[in-house]
Amino acid sequence: MAFLPGAPRRLCSLFLCLSLSTLLTRAATRRHEWEVSYQFKSPDCVRKLSATINGQTPGPAIHATQGDTVEVKVRNSLLTENLAIHWHGIRQIGTPWADGTEGVTQCPILPGDTFTYAFVVDRPGTYMYHAHYGMQRSAGLYGVIVVAAAPGGTEPFAYDDEHDVLLNDWWHNSTYELAAGLASVPMVWVGEPHSLLINGRGKFNCSAAVPGTCNATSPECATPVFAVVPGKTYRFRIASVTSLSALNFEIEGHEMTVVEADGHYVKPFVVKNLNIYSGETYSVLIKADQDPNRNYWLASNVVSREPATPTGTAILSYNGDRASPATTPPTGPAWNDTMYRFRQSVATVAHPAHVEPPPPRADRTILLLNTQNKIDGRIKWALNGVSFTLPHTPYLVAMKRGLLGTFDQRPPPETYAHQGYDVYSPPPNPNATVSDGLYRLQFGSVVDVVLQNANMLAPNKSETHPWHLHGHDFWVLGYGIGRFDPTVHPASYNLKDPILKNTVAVHPYGWTALRFKADNPGVWAFHCHIEAHFFMGMGVVFEEGIHRVANLPPEIMGCGETKGGH
Amino acid sequence: MAFLPGAPRRLCSLFLCLSLSTLLTRAATRRHEWEVSYQFKSPDCVRKLSATINGQTPGPAIHATQGDTVEVKVRNSLLTENLAIHWHGIRQIGTPWADGTEGVTQCPILPGDTFTYAFVVDRPGTYMYHAHYGMQRSAGLYGVIVVAAAPGGTEPFAYDDEHDVLLNDWWHNSTYELAAGLASVPMVWVGEPHSLLINGRGKFNCSAAVPGTCNATSPECATPVFAVVPGKTYRFRIASVTSLSALNFEIEGHEMTVVEADGHYVKPFVVKNLNIYSGETYSVLIKADQDPNRNYWLASNVVSREPATPTGTAILSYNGDRASPATTPPTGPAWNDTMYRFRQSVATVAHPAHVEPPPPRADRTILLLNTQNKIDGRIKWALNGVSFTLPHTPYLVAMKRGLLGTFDQRPPPETYAHQGYDVYSPPPNPNATVSDGLYRLQFGSVVDVVLQNANMLAPNKSETHPWHLHGHDFWVLGYGIGRFDPTVHPASYNLKDPILKNTVAVHPYGWTALRFKADNPGVWAFHCHIEAHFFMGMGVVFEEGIHRVANLPPEIMGCGETKGGH
Repeated sequence: MAFLPGAPRRLCSLFLCLSLSTLLTRAATRRHEWEVSYQFKSPDCVRKLSATINGQTPGPAIHATQGDTVEVKVRNSLLTENLAIHWHGIRQIGTPWADGTEGVTQCPILPGDTFTYAFVVDRPGTYMYHAHYGMQRSAGLYGVIVVAAAPGGTEPFAYDDEHDVLLNDWWHNSTYELAAGLASVPMVWVGEPHSLLINGRGKFNCSAAVPGTCNATSPECATPVFAVVPGKTYRFRIASVTSLSALNFEIEGHEMTVVEADGHYVKPFVVKNLNIYSGETYSVLIKADQDPNRNYWLASNVVSREPATPTGTAILSYNGDRASPATTPPTGPAWNDTMYRFRQSVATVAHPAHVEPPPPRADRTILLLNTQNKIDGRIKWALNGVSFTLPHTPYLVAMKRGLLGTFDQRPPPETYAHQGYDVYSPPPNPNATVSDGLYRLQFGSVVDVVLQNANMLAPNKSETHPWHLHGHDFWVLGYGIGRFDPTVHPASYNLKDPILKNTVAVHPYGWTALRFKADNPGVWAFHCHIEAHFFMGMGVVFEEGIHRVANLPPEIMGCGETKGGH
Repeated sequence: MAFLPGAPRRLCSLFLCLSLSTLLTRAATRRHEWEVSYQFKSPDCVRKLSATINGQTPGPAIHATQGDTVEVKVRNSLLTENLAIHWHGIRQIGTPWADGTEGVTQCPILPGDTFTYAFVVDRPGTYMYHAHYGMQRSAGLYGVIVVAAAPGGTEPFAYDDEHDVLLNDWWHNSTYELAAGLASVPMVWVGEPHSLLINGRGKFNCSAAVPGTCNATSPECATPVFAVVPGKTYRFRIASVTSLSALNFEIEGHEMTVVEADGHYVKPFVVKNLNIYSGETYSVLIKADQDPNRNYWLASNVVSREPATPTGTAILSYNGDRASPATTPPTGPAWNDTMYRFRQSVATVAHPAHVEPPPPRADRTILLLNTQNKIDGRIKWALNGVSFTLPHTPYLVAMKRGLLGTFDQRPPPETYAHQGYDVYSPPPNPNATVSDGLYRLQFGSVVDVVLQNANMLAPNKSETHPWHLHGHDFWVLGYGIGRFDPTVHPASYNLKDPILKNTVAVHPYGWTALRFKADNPGVWAFHCHIEAHFFMGMGVVFEEGIHRVANLPPEIMGCGETKGGH
């Protein structure tokens, strides 16, 4: 049987069991061999050392069918740098050691080493993978995972064909420069992205580039083309792996019907364009019903931060040719129209035929105030005054083996002084402490988390933070703008048809409430998916059912207190 | 007692034992705590992410007295990158695990980890330390080690004061770009250095720099000043850690008397300027006997490759002021005057009062033909047709523990078809094989190595290769230009007063013969000290007396087959 320990039982508890036997008998193992190395690439026409998989960035798409085991043998051919790859949206039920989160579920993979990730893709949908070590993702290590519904399963919509759209932002500066700048005193901020990439391609204006580095005619930066046949309906699977940017995605002249979010079916709604945050995936349907004698722009634009990056473009081609439309690419909504994006968030609820009702109440509620802080002259992000730092011994190993001296045993605070907190002013006390403590959750308990956004250090500034939970999906119970009041707002939670997601936006000055069941034995990161923000401390970690985790594979060890097999 | 296992005995066998008891009673432990991190630095006025020790590049100088134990606690605060530091010129008698050579004597130090190097500095002299992992040295990780003679010891020359001069070449491109370029097909060659640095400082012409990156008035690139008092004599301790360049060093208007090379006293000879190759150290004496009403240039110039890098400069100041001399800095000898440099090599012999005679004959002779080759489209360097690659399990651990599956058990060839080889033509067969095999030497045996240089792949091109041996000094028995003939040239070896060195030049189209005693239990790299050349395979490894090596510290393990303590 292709399943790893624990998987079948868990699948059965979370899904309809009707088709499980069919699914099991058909399950295949999808094997991939990847070599990760640095290569000179010109994704936006400017030559840059990029982290590649088998010579490509983005890496190859993983295609599988629900119930399959995906096995990826990763060889680290970086020269002096370690590596870890996270399978974003895959819950790793029964395989918490395969989550690929350096410091949480594994030691990093050393240069020259090979590490095999193996896990079951238990739900159809659109996911992604990316590096999860330092800020390595921004070097180019990412790709999409597409899990098709099992032959027995049905999806609540129909389409003729599909396209993958991977969105990203891109700097010409190296990841090392980005990260070292953030860790510097004073902080050296790299600035807004140089380009927005669609499927790893963009177009920088070569006249603004360092002489000799830019080649506008490089095939590596040829504008991507998405071919359509008039009259047909297409599923666009859209994923964002941006390091920083919130994006708005639009297909000129074509309305989009949102049908999937983070692997869950959405009650369909129509948009002119789609707001998408780093770590999110959506499927939209579009009908090729416009004038077939011309092509149309696909456009990606920065929202939520004042944009200084040109529109990212691709071409929707009715003719099969690569001709650029004569029109101007869509520029998206006003970047600072928070309510525009807020409405899309609220509109995203479960498809009526696929509602998985949330437990009616939580056993525990954790309120997390998101603040920007200053510690030892460095700008950091903190939750309830605690800025997160990763331990050097991965939690999963440390907790399973009782190496409790390897991280702060004091749990981070459950709440903050919410009653008096003015979310519209800079933090009254910009100090914070640094800790690698974590939250221990009772196995099987229901946990609510309310993420409260606030003003940053500078006045009149608050950003969108897309929070991503590893190992779970969560129900999105509600959103608000302003201060969350635990005596008032829970009454307005959507307990009827909340969408399940793994990544959710916390809007400027706003709050987002979510609920999950702590029923996946392991240790799981929960963090802002803006790479710089997690790097600066914007994350927490949950442990649940550590004693139910099966024997750990020794391959995940070798660092910190597990160096040399201690 | 401060000594580590094995040291006292070995010291006694190699040195006069007269002063040993004095020396031992006075031995101190010099403790250093280093944090290695990336910082933005402007060594030549151009801002670049640099590898620093405690925020500095070059790192702090290590000062110790003969017989001291040096203990350096290195914390790796690089974000995703590993680390190893080599103590170049220190033989590590009894502590082969402290040599700091990744893949040979240790696994690399992971981010967040601390590794303590501890070793005895058993001889007075001028040494250096530098990163020995990938091409990390070129990122800025290096410094000088100065070991003073023990109070009982005397040096065969006198001086009033001393200065350290650390020479280097510097690129604005990152180490990652350099290394990835070398590994690319086709090779992407970074080109000649942007600057030559003296004590970590140079002056790039800001008008030629990428706008916004260069600040000509940054204190980080202020020209170094060496103060002298008229009439006094100074010892200049000069070390070269260049990645690529052979250098010529000159002090305008001041003759230099060469008195030390690689920690050994030289029969004094006077030069106008000094040729110095990467990995070498020299001490020269200069007398401040010139017009004290002006200052004088110190100048570093590229030789042996056609220079495209401006002269590196510093100031010899009689007045204590920083005024630049009105003169033009010396430009050194003609870059392609091989015989000029050859003569200096031949002139460097042991001081009459400090001759350590070599064993009269060798037990084994290894001839190594240095060729440039092409393997799978990549340019490589090879010895006798074998291009060296480092194993993933360090040899020291693998051999001590009998993990013989971790590297090629076939030893590399002892010789090549020297009789017919035309050193003045490109290699007739540019192919080579790649191997991590090594030479096993009988413990205590006397080994001769003759390094034969030859024409590169392109016609009429041959470079100088400075070869560095770890764990030993070797006697330099002879040099020649042209093809080495083992039936003829050994008769001309200098067995009377050869200098002992750890790094020696092999001149273009020439050969260099050296002898050493395989009496230091451990595994030792021997390689071209041009960082790119070793990276491209120009090295070999010697094992000797592995069974005499004491128990290995577990801290050196954790990679390859020793991951997880296997």
